[in-house]
Amino acid sequence: MPQTETVGIIGAGSFGTAMANLLALNTDVLVYSRNPELVEQLKKDRFRFGVPLHERVTVINDFEQLADRCQLILPIVPSNNFREMMRSVTDYLTPGHVLIHGTKGFDIGDVVLEDIPKTGIERRQVQTMTEVILEESVVVRVGALTGPNLARELLDGQPSASVIASKFDEVIQRADAVLSSQQLHVFHTHDLLGAELAGVLKNVVALGSGILKGHGLGKNIQSMLITRGLHEMIHFGRALGSSNKAFLGTAGIGDLIATATSSKSRNYTFGYRIGCGEKLEEVRSTSQELAEGVRTLMITRNLARGMRLRVPITEMLYRIVFEDFPVKDAMDFLITYPYEIDVDFL
Amino acid sequence: MPQTETVGIIGAGSFGTAMANLLALNTDVLVYSRNPELVEQLKKDRFRFGVPLHERVTVINDFEQLADRCQLILPIVPSNNFREMMRSVTDYLTPGHVLIHGTKGFDIGDVVLEDIPKTGIERRQVQTMTEVILEESVVVRVGALTGPNLARELLDGQPSASVIASKFDEVIQRADAVLSSQQLHVFHTHDLLGAELAGVLKNVVALGSGILKGHGLGKNIQSMLITRGLHEMIHFGRALGSSNKAFLGTAGIGDLIATATSSKSRNYTFGYRIGCGEKLEEVRSTSQELAEGVRTLMITRNLARGMRLRVPITEMLYRIVFEDFPVKDAMDFLITYPYEIDVDFL
Repeated sequence: MPQTETVGIIGAGSFGTAMANLLALNTDVLVYSRNPELVEQLKKDRFRFGVPLHERVTVINDFEQLADRCQLILPIVPSNNFREMMRSVTDYLTPGHVLIHGTKGFDIGDVVLEDIPKTGIERRQVQTMTEVILEESVVVRVGALTGPNLARELLDGQPSASVIASKFDEVIQRADAVLSSQQLHVFHTHDLLGAELAGVLKNVVALGSGILKGHGLGKNIQSMLITRGLHEMIHFGRALGSSNKAFLGTAGIGDLIATATSSKSRNYTFGYRIGCGEKLEEVRSTSQELAEGVRTLMITRNLARGMRLRVPITEMLYRIVFEDFPVKDAMDFLITYPYEIDVDFL
Repeated sequence: MPQTETVGIIGAGSFGTAMANLLALNTDVLVYSRNPELVEQLKKDRFRFGVPLHERVTVINDFEQLADRCQLILPIVPSNNFREMMRSVTDYLTPGHVLIHGTKGFDIGDVVLEDIPKTGIERRQVQTMTEVILEESVVVRVGALTGPNLARELLDGQPSASVIASKFDEVIQRADAVLSSQQLHVFHTHDLLGAELAGVLKNVVALGSGILKGHGLGKNIQSMLITRGLHEMIHFGRALGSSNKAFLGTAGIGDLIATATSSKSRNYTFGYRIGCGEKLEEVRSTSQELAEGVRTLMITRNLARGMRLRVPITEMLYRIVFEDFPVKDAMDFLITYPYEIDVDFL
């Protein structure tokens, strides 16, 4: 297990590219994209999202080659595409591979998002990315890469902190060895489910935070939303079997603050436009990628409903985004909501 | 105990004025200022910090009258003036009075800030505002008003959330009855010490967050600082005898986010100017009021030293603000600091 093992990345999106350049500070990196035109273009240009690819980064269209040369692989693709991606690469994966994903969303199998029953769904219909990896491959040693990692800032060379979550110390140590640098502080946690859920659920709160801002509201009420949103995330996480731990650390509070207070966050920006009065379809039709938070909002609201959880913030956001419920009425509902006890999860 | 008891406020600063106008939505309010010229001016103008005083707000220069007419009194004056203020009003206070302070700082008795020994001070040399009230008066039923309450936003009519902390349910209920409105959600906690400490200590983290921003750094690393800063606050609070609870709620995370991410926060702005390269004396000489965080930084660093606590963020900020330590070197120190375990306080 040399410190300089070559690392593979699946996906050449903004976060995948940012991670490639960060890893290249320590080691050689192979980036796989399924899009041959993009690969050709990147081989020629060596520019992506406005920044040059580090010289130790190689972009390829051949996953078999990547799986041969890399034991440590980071899949970083949108959640609605994750299972399909896993199915397309699984033949090349062995039990020797280590997969650490960087995707913050849920999988709902072959169900189309719009077809989720509004009367509620069950836990077994919703998978984390770790669960998808374990279902779709022979890989055993899995983990998640999470934390406050706005891709734009990473691409611009801003320092940051990430969290490596895994049940396996070996996975954490190998990831730390290739990721830690003067630009990236790497935290460790064994609370894999909590870290994943925190990364997924915080996108919903970020939507809400953007909506408040778009509606002309200030920092005080934004801070209340973020705090209560965090508590709702914890409540939800516990119902799904995770502990509080990751939620209260860099993967939880940290990621939540970055995503819910930055105009560089896609989810926050999406919410901002909704808060300004645009309709879901307008925002959708003019966004390159759908914010993960919109998908997560649809899934978590209906999962909460199926599990009979009390999640007032998620419910209000669902109504605003999908049912044109007025922001003002949602605010009035939440500000008079009978939560009196401030912290009820300890 | 009628729902509409007249409430007294001590101090006509920005937060005191904001609270007066919020209380006036529910009841009559007397505001006491020790400054007779200010009182005369406000009686005439009825304008303060750019907003009109609510018609139910009366400003007076006679504390005896206030103590006669109000059982519920909110002292809201800077921490360096709090004990002196208490001494000046104590003769009029009876055991029937309820005092809920809104001050986020420490008291150090008659010691001058600059004379605090850099080799460390002890817990008994540092008091919370609650401790000062109990020491300086016969009042028994005390509490604290805290939470994400940027005064400028409150003055501008933005909605917000506050936390009432007290050991006494009666204190909480009476405060809730006069404070709760469509503009203010009121949370309750019995963790008085934790809520006070959270409100005090968060100003140090806000300074640090401003410094990062002034230094040109982004949201990712700001979020790491805020998260680790919160953990340091908890570590500190536990050493002083409080629980985690208030730190993880609206009085902790909530207040921290508002103060550490808003340019309307005096502490954040102070840090921002330091981060831009100004010296402490320059910022001091051009600020109307000293940010509470600067005073708190001096006190907590030396208290931590006296108590042999490991508080790397506080220590780095102390060196930057008071000893011209380069921000870049502090960043390098923190990003390579051996915190690996993300959450170690549960």
